[in-house]
Amino acid sequence: MAVAWSEKASSMEALSMSPPHMSSSPAILSQDDLKKIAAYKAVEFVESGMVLGLGTGSTSKHAVDRIGELLRQGKLNNIVGIPTSIETRERAISLGIPLSDLDNHPTLDLAIDGADEVDPYLNLIKGRGGSLLREKMVEGACKKFVVIVDESKLVKYLGGSGLALPVEVVPFCWKFTANKLQNLFQDSGCVAKLRNDRKGQPFVTDNGNYIVDLYVKKDIGDLQVASDAILRITGVIEHGMFLDMATTVIIAGELGITIKNK
Amino acid sequence: MAVAWSEKASSMEALSMSPPHMSSSPAILSQDDLKKIAAYKAVEFVESGMVLGLGTGSTSKHAVDRIGELLRQGKLNNIVGIPTSIETRERAISLGIPLSDLDNHPTLDLAIDGADEVDPYLNLIKGRGGSLLREKMVEGACKKFVVIVDESKLVKYLGGSGLALPVEVVPFCWKFTANKLQNLFQDSGCVAKLRNDRKGQPFVTDNGNYIVDLYVKKDIGDLQVASDAILRITGVIEHGMFLDMATTVIIAGELGITIKNK
Repeated sequence: MAVAWSEKASSMEALSMSPPHMSSSPAILSQDDLKKIAAYKAVEFVESGMVLGLGTGSTSKHAVDRIGELLRQGKLNNIVGIPTSIETRERAISLGIPLSDLDNHPTLDLAIDGADEVDPYLNLIKGRGGSLLREKMVEGACKKFVVIVDESKLVKYLGGSGLALPVEVVPFCWKFTANKLQNLFQDSGCVAKLRNDRKGQPFVTDNGNYIVDLYVKKDIGDLQVASDAILRITGVIEHGMFLDMATTVIIAGELGITIKNK
Repeated sequence: MAVAWSEKASSMEALSMSPPHMSSSPAILSQDDLKKIAAYKAVEFVESGMVLGLGTGSTSKHAVDRIGELLRQGKLNNIVGIPTSIETRERAISLGIPLSDLDNHPTLDLAIDGADEVDPYLNLIKGRGGSLLREKMVEGACKKFVVIVDESKLVKYLGGSGLALPVEVVPFCWKFTANKLQNLFQDSGCVAKLRNDRKGQPFVTDNGNYIVDLYVKKDIGDLQVASDAILRITGVIEHGMFLDMATTVIIAGELGITIKNK
């Protein structure tokens, strides 16, 4: 897999990673430590005056917190944030980050967000947190889209982690739609499951829809073809494949940070 | 236009139309009379034991009423209806038509529904009534789809009536989505407008979404390409072009009924 990565990455930079607490003695970094390291590195791309897409999820949270911190310290100013979920909006408000929306700022300078999978071509799966639609709208409107992940998110092909490819669907006759999705990728051993919340009820997105999670046993072939086929199914709103959207991926691993540019 | 029609129709049948009140003296038929004539003709395709898609709108209403009448008279039995809107469901219940849904009946024998435009290739625009998503789900699952229109609905190209091509969109940042849609068809002079209800508030679909109506000054080119391009826009749920779906179109005009088969 390392070969595939270095083959495809047009620019790759391995940085030494030495947070203060590691300078004297090596420490075992938790997954959350790695997420934080990637997030802080991404925030170095932020400049005063930017309109910023604010991602959702456990990795992005660190980036949003860091932006709030730099604003409070006066090291950043004139930032406008466009949140990708209700959760992120509320967190940004609590941190004092000025917010707007796509209607008022249809072009963004930069977005920072996590991802659930990253393939060697920097295609992503996102949406296991349930915010794929708003994330795709906001991040599709950005000049630069910096993705922050720990190294566990790297896959040979999308779906390759064995975890879900999420699809947002209209609640009306969702089983019918889920069957169509499963049949579409039956050659890849696809199983479609409705996502439930902790109470065992259908998980409802910020847009009032359901999520059908697709699990595949092998790759689904040409991703653009797969994307169009999914979107053609009536009842489907959007899927979690973010194709050809990331401009930079920052990967935090035990041995350092790797930055890959498109 | 007549030439275009006869060129493309693989089967065309002109029937004499002589409802009882016309047998002695000709009368001027209202648009609603024509809709009713087309609807009654379509119901002749219905057989006992069928699973039926029940359309929405002023023309379909006549078909639903007629099916209810034939059930009451015992001329039809064992019908299961799949309604395409909350409005149609309620009407069908009031008429005593047994109902189900796509989850329980994923394959339908026949659907009958109106259309806002019909082009020479039997492609349709639907959804000016706001139910395009459920209609497309149900009618896409039918072995036969009979469309009933009065002759005012025939167009040279979709959009050619000067009325709207409706697109169902997520309410979140709908202006941003509307702008993307307008830009997509700027070469056709497209103007995108949010649909409002009678109180001037955004019209809300049965699925809790908005409708953006697209108005074009000339044809939008290859319809399948246009369809994919619309569906690729994040924030779009579905559009009102029903391509290659109608198997029969029944057209009621002043001079008789015309039946066109795919």
